[in-house]
Amino acid sequence: MSSIFGQAFKIATWGESHGGGVGVMIDGCPAGIPINEEMIQLELDRRRPGQSDIVTPRKEADACEILSGTFQGVTLGTSIAVLVRNKDARPAAYEEMAVNYRPSHADYTYEAKYGLRNWQGGGRASARETIGRVAASAVAQQVIKSLYPDLEVLAWVKSIQDIQAEVDHETITKEQIESNIVRTGDASKVDEMIDRIKEVRADGNSIGGVVECIVRGCPAGLGAPVFDKLEAELAKAVMSIPATKGFEIGSGFAGTLLTGREHNDAFYMEGDRVRTRTNRSGGIQGGISNGEDIVFRVAFKPTATIMTEQETVNTDKEDSTLKGRGRHDACVLPRAVPMVEAMVNLVLCDHLLRQRGQNGQITMK
Amino acid sequence: MSSIFGQAFKIATWGESHGGGVGVMIDGCPAGIPINEEMIQLELDRRRPGQSDIVTPRKEADACEILSGTFQGVTLGTSIAVLVRNKDARPAAYEEMAVNYRPSHADYTYEAKYGLRNWQGGGRASARETIGRVAASAVAQQVIKSLYPDLEVLAWVKSIQDIQAEVDHETITKEQIESNIVRTGDASKVDEMIDRIKEVRADGNSIGGVVECIVRGCPAGLGAPVFDKLEAELAKAVMSIPATKGFEIGSGFAGTLLTGREHNDAFYMEGDRVRTRTNRSGGIQGGISNGEDIVFRVAFKPTATIMTEQETVNTDKEDSTLKGRGRHDACVLPRAVPMVEAMVNLVLCDHLLRQRGQNGQITMK
Amino acid sequence: MSSIFGQAFKIATWGESHGGGVGVMIDGCPAGIPINEEMIQLELDRRRPGQSDIVTPRKEADACEILSGTFQGVTLGTSIAVLVRNKDARPAAYEEMAVNYRPSHADYTYEAKYGLRNWQGGGRASARETIGRVAASAVAQQVIKSLYPDLEVLAWVKSIQDIQAEVDHETITKEQIESNIVRTGDASKVDEMIDRIKEVRADGNSIGGVVECIVRGCPAGLGAPVFDKLEAELAKAVMSIPATKGFEIGSGFAGTLLTGREHNDAFYMEGDRVRTRTNRSGGIQGGISNGEDIVFRVAFKPTATIMTEQETVNTDKEDSTLKGRGRHDACVLPRAVPMVEAMVNLVLCDHLLRQRGQNGQITMK
Amino acid sequence: MSSIFGQAFKIATWGESHGGGVGVMIDGCPAGIPINEEMIQLELDRRRPGQSDIVTPRKEADACEILSGTFQGVTLGTSIAVLVRNKDARPAAYEEMAVNYRPSHADYTYEAKYGLRNWQGGGRASARETIGRVAASAVAQQVIKSLYPDLEVLAWVKSIQDIQAEVDHETITKEQIESNIVRTGDASKVDEMIDRIKEVRADGNSIGGVVECIVRGCPAGLGAPVFDKLEAELAKAVMSIPATKGFEIGSGFAGTLLTGREHNDAFYMEGDRVRTRTNRSGGIQGGISNGEDIVFRVAFKPTATIMTEQETVNTDKEDSTLKGRGRHDACVLPRAVPMVEAMVNLVLCDHLLRQRGQNGQITMK
Repeated sequence: MSSIFGQAFKIATWGESHGGGVGVMIDGCPAGIPINEEMIQLELDRRRPGQSDIVTPRKEADACEILSGTFQGVTLGTSIAVLVRNKDARPAAYEEMAVNYRPSHADYTYEAKYGLRNWQGGGRASARETIGRVAASAVAQQVIKSLYPDLEVLAWVKSIQDIQAEVDHETITKEQIESNIVRTGDASKVDEMIDRIKEVRADGNSIGGVVECIVRGCPAGLGAPVFDKLEAELAKAVMSIPATKGFEIGSGFAGTLLTGREHNDAFYMEGDRVRTRTNRSGGIQGGISNGEDIVFRVAFKPTATIMTEQETVNTDKEDSTLKGRGRHDACVLPRAVPMVEAMVNLVLCDHLLRQRGQNGQITMK
Repeated sequence: MSSIFGQAFKIATWGESHGGGVGVMIDGCPAGIPINEEMIQLELDRRRPGQSDIVTPRKEADACEILSGTFQGVTLGTSIAVLVRNKDARPAAYEEMAVNYRPSHADYTYEAKYGLRNWQGGGRASARETIGRVAASAVAQQVIKSLYPDLEVLAWVKSIQDIQAEVDHETITKEQIESNIVRTGDASKVDEMIDRIKEVRADGNSIGGVVECIVRGCPAGLGAPVFDKLEAELAKAVMSIPATKGFEIGSGFAGTLLTGREHNDAFYMEGDRVRTRTNRSGGIQGGISNGEDIVFRVAFKPTATIMTEQETVNTDKEDSTLKGRGRHDACVLPRAVPMVEAMVNLVLCDHLLRQRGQNGQITMK
Repeated sequence: MSSIFGQAFKIATWGESHGGGVGVMIDGCPAGIPINEEMIQLELDRRRPGQSDIVTPRKEADACEILSGTFQGVTLGTSIAVLVRNKDARPAAYEEMAVNYRPSHADYTYEAKYGLRNWQGGGRASARETIGRVAASAVAQQVIKSLYPDLEVLAWVKSIQDIQAEVDHETITKEQIESNIVRTGDASKVDEMIDRIKEVRADGNSIGGVVECIVRGCPAGLGAPVFDKLEAELAKAVMSIPATKGFEIGSGFAGTLLTGREHNDAFYMEGDRVRTRTNRSGGIQGGISNGEDIVFRVAFKPTATIMTEQETVNTDKEDSTLKGRGRHDACVLPRAVPMVEAMVNLVLCDHLLRQRGQNGQITMK
Repeated sequence: MSSIFGQAFKIATWGESHGGGVGVMIDGCPAGIPINEEMIQLELDRRRPGQSDIVTPRKEADACEILSGTFQGVTLGTSIAVLVRNKDARPAAYEEMAVNYRPSHADYTYEAKYGLRNWQGGGRASARETIGRVAASAVAQQVIKSLYPDLEVLAWVKSIQDIQAEVDHETITKEQIESNIVRTGDASKVDEMIDRIKEVRADGNSIGGVVECIVRGCPAGLGAPVFDKLEAELAKAVMSIPATKGFEIGSGFAGTLLTGREHNDAFYMEGDRVRTRTNRSGGIQGGISNGEDIVFRVAFKPTATIMTEQETVNTDKEDSTLKGRGRHDACVLPRAVPMVEAMVNLVLCDHLLRQRGQNGQITMK
């Protein structure tokens, strides 16, 4: 279903950017996992608007409330619900959108599908929808931690437009990424990236970029054959984040230029652990993790809302023009980092529980 | 579940490369759709081994049998099952793999997950698994045709290693693609591509490339908000095909270099139809089709099986070596074309029925 | 999943009897359906505590808030969330249950499953959980009404302990049922039933009974072969309501005493409509509705909470005793009526959308 | 979906009574479980036609073939497919049904739903469909055995029409049940039951009855809150078997006559095990097993096919008559016993894996 995700660890989200609030219900969470509002708030704060001067200034504390599913600080095993109220909604800023479709937004397609839409702030197509994902991911992280304390999901901004970060996958830390407001892993590119975003915003324009993500400490054996291959699940998960245009794992598109002899990852023993010399597979082979770092990249397009008059059509199906208003990110990348991590945590938590359900934990180390 | 795909038009597949056979069960297919074994066979013949001298010589007619779900040439509305027997299995060719993990294959990961594996020919990780998908897609195509006769899914080889095909999306036809054994859309590159494949094969090596796919005549309104965005569903669908490493839609990774002003697709009226001047969105906005061509690309890695001795480890967890044997594709691209089309047909058929179920057909044109 | 129900019209519920609140998220609801809080409140008021002097005196207005999914009074097609806050929670009344398992309650089994439980008021096993079902059903009713305005779901109390109501299925109306606080369909038994409930309550005891339900105006063709037979879906739906012990459709258990010659429902034409002379099938044949009234009965056990000291064990696994406290129904039947109707509406709405998705509406009249 | 069942242990079935064959695909089965065709055949032989002189004489060996999912005698963890060919199909016996709807059969409802039907032998509504269930159950039994060797599912004929068997739940064995062709648990009623069936059949008539089922050795903690309560899942599972009219668990409908004081199951300690003095709950409280025997009953109607001319309508929507032909059971009860057991095994296996996935096995003893 369109707002439900996962099989064993299943989440159901709701909420428009303008309305009573956004939230998530989680079904299938193990019992006895420590969860509280502070844990969830930490993650929500990483995605919330107004967190720095390069993101949208919409003022939302995004304070969360756990409505159900926990007792005395731990999960009950029954469904968990988390709610975040909308506070700083300004529907007036969107009145023009009531009759004009914003280019490269979802206004026209929602109307084509449903015959109507909530034109106040993007409705369900707003990035505000991702609050439910991030809140659920905070819970998923605790489940993962209870089973695999060493598993770590780490994403960073790999590029802003043509500014490429060089990041050492072995040594990069969450602290380094969070130490700069653009959330890149290359300290030497921070200023350039920030300047570029501000410059583009000042021009009423927008830009995109690439998020890179690794998963360290993932046990071998996660994922599944055929349709639910781990890379396929990750691809769907991150391609469901607003503004994404591409996904590649391991060698990715560049890998198509190599020969098999160059591309194959030779196995060798490192102590009692099976390792590969290279990691063009990106940590997944045949849809199942092999214990190496999972590595992938996600392309985000330039934000569709720009402060420039653009050609469009209106709801009477006449040619028209529209100029962006409202408060928006000129570049979604800094806030996309926690969204990507959130989707990865959800996928991994789901597959950890699926693997335990089907095969127990015996084969996973 | 790992071998079940789709929500409204749901398929369940089974079968290893060496065993009784491979097949598919389809649940939720509309009643009264004309289906017969010849229709299915046509699609199976496009993916079968031995179809040309640049693919694996394994001799499989891949003759299908409809076991249930049709009566007097049309679907009954109840579950359909299609079976293809394995004929030319040669388990002896795989005995060495019983103890050695093939690099960049699924041998090690299946064993990590399940504690055992069918080492005869790749088991469920064999490309032979895709027979079920292609057979189901032949049925899906008939359903689509009954609802949207003009909808057309068309894939071709966009590149083999660094050999790039130039393809005009407006004019390319299935006949042009099927007229050459490599299934590219650029007649001027056919010989070069074929030569490259043969050359690499003669060297015991392998190569990869990119498949491009368009969907023409897709109604606006297909897809869904949030998790089941049409591009997310397509991403999962094609990233579940063996050997895929990347997916990008519309502007894709290159789109991250543009600004919003360059990237946005302006709307205009063409008669009574809403159109966009450009199509960097790739036919999908906010997860829902906008009526323009859906356009995406899929990266396929070089085939993992190569006829060269490679470093690996064995089931006793000792360093070892292995040289490829058996009959394999040196390049999967020609056979990947129908596999990509199959997954797209399955996704579109599923979403057509989902849209009809939820919203009727009134908003779709 | 344990708190998710339905396929095409899917609901996800949350909430304990003591906690932030209870609610429901609905996914897959058609767009453009008129919905508001008053409509939902009407149904919630039929199930709420304190509605009459034969039900639990817990003071809950059960006021609902639509958090998302509607705009200008109609559904958007995206996920709908409805929240009801808990007001009159009295956890102190349950402290004794923290250490003692209430007989024939879920205290022990929740702890066996999850290793812990929310002992304040029954947690997720409280009948308060059904608020989410009833709220979702109010939405489902509007969807059904938009497609089949004549379809009517009508339940009533068939018996309280041994007091049997005689109800004429042809003429019974909702007004008749709602005109008495016990919600029976036989005016001549109202006083006797009320007296029995009060008498039993005064004695600190409890009683059960049977709810009967009919669906009028259901089109032929709803339901599905094999596992999702309409009677199987209804059975699951109502057997998931707390305190149910049995389900029978049409002739039910008594039908096992007849021969086929007596039991079969002969077909005949009534104008252009296919009818059956009798309706021992209960409106469903082969899992699919035949256009006759759907008729079934549901057994509810006597409420487990009684104001008598009972033998039990405690969380230290020692023999113990416990006497009921708190505010409870001595007989759940009057409030069970809207719960049964709710589950039926959810099942029918789901199957209406499933049928439209798979087969369109052409074959349904 | 209509022919897919289960969540963690999921089965997909296909096949009509007349066609290529019937079968099942199983997804999510743990790896390493010993399975072979003999094991499956043993269960199929208990449901097959022609097994005794009180069941249909249709000659079907129902020989099964495992098509995929096992290797060297154990499951691979990937999807398993099992096929049974149809042999003794006699479509000619059904030609009259092509134009006349059989009373109390699914002919009319399938046509109302799908616009057409396979009139040869009942198509998907034939009891032959249950082969897939029984084959999958043989696999489920092995999974259960690997986790809970002492868990035993035991069903028997409780009544044939008004002939009631008295069965001691403590001592009844599978051997006792299988020792008589009617599969009742009361040796003193075997002859009377057989005589009744033969007598009714000689008269061209049919009869029904009740199957009772217990599950011994079920761990506490199986099942789930709210919608997937274990009794709700069992109710759906058995009410999806052809010819069922009712389901009751524990005290069932008779329990509605008791007061809470009489009905509640007092807890006490038996060594270190929590037990209940009585078992009116039927082994399930709050939707979750409590470790006592699970006990329920299922009503089966008299077979719809009778050798008597009956009033009906034809496909031209005219009044007509029809007399049963073909080979049928005059009483389905003896063959219903393994069908009921099959559905219970499927539900329990599914919930065992769900519980292991969500909560590990720590809380289950």
